[in-house]
Amino acid sequence: MRYKLLIEYDGSRYAGWQLQKKERSIQGELIAAVTTVLGQAPVELYGSGRTDAGVHARGQVAHLEVVDDRRLRPDQLLAKLNAELPHDINLLSVEKAHPKFHARFDAKERVYVYEISKRRNAFAKKHVWWVRDPLNIVTMRSAAALLAGFHDFRSFGDQSEPGQSTLVDLHRVDITESEDRIFITIRGSHFLWKMVRRVVGVLVEVGRGNMTPQDVEQLLTEPSRTPAKYTAPPSGLFLQAVFYEK
Amino acid sequence: MRYKLLIEYDGSRYAGWQLQKKERSIQGELIAAVTTVLGQAPVELYGSGRTDAGVHARGQVAHLEVVDDRRLRPDQLLAKLNAELPHDINLLSVEKAHPKFHARFDAKERVYVYEISKRRNAFAKKHVWWVRDPLNIVTMRSAAALLAGFHDFRSFGDQSEPGQSTLVDLHRVDITESEDRIFITIRGSHFLWKMVRRVVGVLVEVGRGNMTPQDVEQLLTEPSRTPAKYTAPPSGLFLQAVFYEK
Repeated sequence: MRYKLLIEYDGSRYAGWQLQKKERSIQGELIAAVTTVLGQAPVELYGSGRTDAGVHARGQVAHLEVVDDRRLRPDQLLAKLNAELPHDINLLSVEKAHPKFHARFDAKERVYVYEISKRRNAFAKKHVWWVRDPLNIVTMRSAAALLAGFHDFRSFGDQSEPGQSTLVDLHRVDITESEDRIFITIRGSHFLWKMVRRVVGVLVEVGRGNMTPQDVEQLLTEPSRTPAKYTAPPSGLFLQAVFYEK
Repeated sequence: MRYKLLIEYDGSRYAGWQLQKKERSIQGELIAAVTTVLGQAPVELYGSGRTDAGVHARGQVAHLEVVDDRRLRPDQLLAKLNAELPHDINLLSVEKAHPKFHARFDAKERVYVYEISKRRNAFAKKHVWWVRDPLNIVTMRSAAALLAGFHDFRSFGDQSEPGQSTLVDLHRVDITESEDRIFITIRGSHFLWKMVRRVVGVLVEVGRGNMTPQDVEQLLTEPSRTPAKYTAPPSGLFLQAVFYEK
């Protein structure tokens, strides 16, 4: 039987989502918890996508396939798995899914939120990027509007994924601020590896006045290594939600 | 010359506010930073009060007395001290103070906020107390109202402070809630050691239905060891603010 899992995690202590041989990963901890609770390893446990080391999630989705669920109701499975998981990985919900539900291939939209702190903060080092320079939110929004749409994001991807299409439908980029935070919310069909952090890094360069919105637009038409230089740190990045067709 | 410091800190990694011989403390880190920046140890660096190991502050106040401030303006001193301090201790402001200003003796009101989480949370283990049982906020508020006022809080103090008066003017206790948090805000002239965590622990017992508001009232008239049994963990406690007469 198949389950849909909704998961939040603090990525600070992990090598990322994906199972690693020698390092701790979110996927690895989840597989270990399932194995302990059900007395057998899952047939499959796949996430909607990978998150890098130090990146967090408030709404990662995964599907879990098991041969025998020991007649546990989904709410019982949730409680037993959370009792096994480390404190920084938390299952928010467990529900029965269609036998063909696939967390990665069926996802229609992924939402990331990047949090920038305008000030030094004793509580948030691992959960924000502290940018000391004042940022011009108005020009950042202009640049963000130019990035939205179906474009070739080759300049924002990483070279290490040969063969993959670099065409991405970036649904929208919203920038909001509170007294001491700036939130950059990025919605898209999917994302290239490191793309979200490079979009954020480039937008911050615009906010600092080092790049113009037109410079950003040019990155979509001419391949460039510039975004790689400005990759934002993982600490501020949260996979906020993943949406599926009903 | 004398300065007033406003400080926030995450107490998770420290043995508490007070300087220790062998363990790291907030006061010790601040003294070390001042010594590095000014090339001399401070004459005095005293806080408004001690916080225990694992207790946090969003608005601790201290006074700093130095012989030579090297003609640094307060904003320069702030920047240089923050550059030396660890990431989980942050000076929010530095201002010149009256030569006789004393952070502890001049304080008129201390405000603590205790944060309870109603759910498991991947991001907050060191910053909340996760209470799994549902809590009845209405009866908690009734008990809180009975605690407010000038009373003998002997039952809520610790035995290890002989000779100290156990009379405290508890200005007010407010309980508010959001979707997944309960905030208990406690204002008073001063507090006995562990008193805030014991007030919270007793209020949670009331919320669980294990004690009545009348049981709590009785603790003010008859010495009892009951509150000690229910001392709330330090993780959820924040010294929010300290007020002085202008």
